[in-house]
Amino acid sequence: MLAQKTQSERNWKPIIKEFEKVVGKNGVVRRKEELLTYECDGLTSYRQRPALVVLPRTTEQVSEAIKICDRHNIPWLPRGAGTGLSGGALPIENCVLIVTALMRKILNVDLENQRVVVQPGVINNWVTQTVSGAGFYYAPDPSSQIICSIGGNVAENSGGVHCLKYGVTTNHVLGLKLVLPDGAIVDVGGELTEMPGYDLTGLFVGSEGTLGIATEITLRILKTPEAICVLLADFTSVEDAGAAVSAITSAGIIPAGMEMMDNLSINAVEDVVATGCYPRDATAILLVEIDGLQVEVDKNKKRISELCKQNGARNITSANDLETRMKLWKGRKAAFAAAGHLSPDYYVQDGVIPRTQLPYVLKEIERLSEKYGYRVANVFHAGDGNLHPLVLYDNAIPGALEQVEELGGEILKLCVKVGGSLTGEHGIGADKKCYMSEMFNEIDLETMQWVRSVFNPKGLANPDKLFPTPRTCGEAANALQTQKFEGIEAF
Amino acid sequence: MLAQKTQSERNWKPIIKEFEKVVGKNGVVRRKEELLTYECDGLTSYRQRPALVVLPRTTEQVSEAIKICDRHNIPWLPRGAGTGLSGGALPIENCVLIVTALMRKILNVDLENQRVVVQPGVINNWVTQTVSGAGFYYAPDPSSQIICSIGGNVAENSGGVHCLKYGVTTNHVLGLKLVLPDGAIVDVGGELTEMPGYDLTGLFVGSEGTLGIATEITLRILKTPEAICVLLADFTSVEDAGAAVSAITSAGIIPAGMEMMDNLSINAVEDVVATGCYPRDATAILLVEIDGLQVEVDKNKKRISELCKQNGARNITSANDLETRMKLWKGRKAAFAAAGHLSPDYYVQDGVIPRTQLPYVLKEIERLSEKYGYRVANVFHAGDGNLHPLVLYDNAIPGALEQVEELGGEILKLCVKVGGSLTGEHGIGADKKCYMSEMFNEIDLETMQWVRSVFNPKGLANPDKLFPTPRTCGEAANALQTQKFEGIEAF
Repeated sequence: MLAQKTQSERNWKPIIKEFEKVVGKNGVVRRKEELLTYECDGLTSYRQRPALVVLPRTTEQVSEAIKICDRHNIPWLPRGAGTGLSGGALPIENCVLIVTALMRKILNVDLENQRVVVQPGVINNWVTQTVSGAGFYYAPDPSSQIICSIGGNVAENSGGVHCLKYGVTTNHVLGLKLVLPDGAIVDVGGELTEMPGYDLTGLFVGSEGTLGIATEITLRILKTPEAICVLLADFTSVEDAGAAVSAITSAGIIPAGMEMMDNLSINAVEDVVATGCYPRDATAILLVEIDGLQVEVDKNKKRISELCKQNGARNITSANDLETRMKLWKGRKAAFAAAGHLSPDYYVQDGVIPRTQLPYVLKEIERLSEKYGYRVANVFHAGDGNLHPLVLYDNAIPGALEQVEELGGEILKLCVKVGGSLTGEHGIGADKKCYMSEMFNEIDLETMQWVRSVFNPKGLANPDKLFPTPRTCGEAANALQTQKFEGIEAF
Repeated sequence: MLAQKTQSERNWKPIIKEFEKVVGKNGVVRRKEELLTYECDGLTSYRQRPALVVLPRTTEQVSEAIKICDRHNIPWLPRGAGTGLSGGALPIENCVLIVTALMRKILNVDLENQRVVVQPGVINNWVTQTVSGAGFYYAPDPSSQIICSIGGNVAENSGGVHCLKYGVTTNHVLGLKLVLPDGAIVDVGGELTEMPGYDLTGLFVGSEGTLGIATEITLRILKTPEAICVLLADFTSVEDAGAAVSAITSAGIIPAGMEMMDNLSINAVEDVVATGCYPRDATAILLVEIDGLQVEVDKNKKRISELCKQNGARNITSANDLETRMKLWKGRKAAFAAAGHLSPDYYVQDGVIPRTQLPYVLKEIERLSEKYGYRVANVFHAGDGNLHPLVLYDNAIPGALEQVEELGGEILKLCVKVGGSLTGEHGIGADKKCYMSEMFNEIDLETMQWVRSVFNPKGLANPDKLFPTPRTCGEAANALQTQKFEGIEAF
């Protein structure tokens, strides 16, 4: 890794001057105490100070900043709002962090064609705020939607409660203006859903900063539904709640969202935000949101209530008006924060399983929790089988983090074993790259590395993320040159 | 193009023996008269005989066949049912055609998780037939659905009437087993919608055979809706019909399908299939399908009827039962075939425009039709702005095809000019590659070429398709080597 070996001896002074020429003095952060903010993202258990932070405001500035990194072989990575949970924006030693926080313009609103074009630093829920007056909204809604930015959502292909019905970020991004790792500015996709050529928009969404930076993002917005209703059903057994989820989907109903919380989570949120709506003695609760035409919502509300009762629900409450709906959601949205009150630290996992495996996997998580001696609170997107087990621990106890990570790893392997996936919406980042080989074989991973090397041949864009490190970038690049390109003269 | 230069001098005999070892004698087609079938796909105006046709039955056979091509530097291309309309499966001189027609197994049906795994030769509507008894269906429904195959649908990212509400093929493919152009077998995507790593499934869908062959395809199936209703509204002006389309979508209604036909098309289908439902004196008709819960369908039917009337519809008829619905759809489904009765030949275009541009673009097409002196029948997916102008001509008249292609090109440029796209669902293939530069600049196209070269470094997989030829593969490959990979030692 030549590029990194030379980093420590680097003379940063003239390089800082170059960056300042592009983004101004205020656009470069270099003081130790100011760099503290950028040492980690939402995965707070790992920290690394970057050499520099650069804050561009335009596509051209991003391009120029990346060209400087390219010229000097400086590894760099993009950072949005820094709310990611898998360490995608975790700096590496002597890197430059390109932060999109000042790129906060909404560039175009085209209601007639249901498109909004934004800069990457625009906060997720600003999009909905901008268009809600006209009866539109932006569907992907991560729990962090009031602080996370669209650029980060694109990098991690973020999900949220409403992704059950409406899909994750990739389903709502129509086009991107990209700056590639050599500084080239490229447009992929466009304003329409039907575009010829390779789907490079889809390739880029979820690539976690390893292929470049999106500087303009064209989003699809949806019409606000006529009616919305939230149901809360409480159960005395997790199996019953899981069976209700299966019954609802088997009946062909796709709720806008369908979330489950276990007893530990219920009590945690009641302790902290006191919704008063979540029964503390319930083993599990289901929160089901239904949207659509009023007649449709009414009918589905009736059917879902019946299915929950048939599967052992004790009580069902419902909310139609905004205020009561928000009250029912309040606890779910505060679940991660509330876990912080149960123990000094928590580690959140993000595995996906086929819905049918829910009861088995939850029992196994319980078993693993007992085996390792750490409590696990379960909060998850039940409808699409996306689990978020929160492992509670105390980082001050030596060795605890390692044990918790091992437990988290066991949960992930369990998800993959039953036919699931390593991540639903938080990404692989630094946190889960070593598990990629649980899910993909060597040739599958090599194929992804080839694609990475095309966009990122020097390996400077967000190195050491996404892919398992035993297979180094250098190895992949050599394989690429010798195996894949031996025939290139034959064109 | 070294690989192709040597083709004519090639000694095919030992190569045929190699293929026969893999697929058996019956799996290799080599006689001139038998090869006739494979000279063109649905774009019948171009023909080229392949050197050989190979018919594998398994992934391993596909892999071995491709390895033979790779070893001997033989250009090859995949072919499904050969119904494609852009010449994606048009042979080039001295190529091997790998035909998936014998790969017709449905490998797995998992109703609980709403997945079906098929081989590429499975016909589109077999999927629905297989699962319809259990109340499911496969959404993408090209007009050719009773003869086209899933492998071809994946290659061209096919659409259909129901894509307005449910999306095109890429939205329904969860995972693929691929054979890459070096014969490697790779799994991309999986059984779940949420998968980590680069979205290579999305990259592959729509890549028109230039990145490899999909040999196992995991499809998402949907629950059959409770109720379906088809409305036929007839108008005395195309503008009114266009305004009705805009009014319906602006009201936040997403019909399952929304199709428009002009007077020429209406009379053509009435001449041929005599539905008796399409008023011959109408300037345009709209066919709108609504699906969902019965209450939802009833309400939307009422709203759509009102909106059509407010925008000048003369009459509105509706059909709820299957038989009458089929009768209303019959003419639309037969529209391309009926065009064949209006003139000896027709050339079908496939452009996309923003819905708001519909009246302007239809007027411009009328102007171009008069300018060139060829009649144009318009049949199209009005809801998503996907036009299918059918240019009527006689191939026996010297020079007619060239003029018609020029007219088709003018229509495409018009689509791009108003913010549209070169193709909605038929692909670029051989037919429209020269227009790619109307839509993408050099660096955008180069980026796609880089991706192509990673999978297809020798350029043997479906050469001369998708990308404009002035920029040759050789040039792109050289650029790739010198510009992009100069820094690869620095890893």
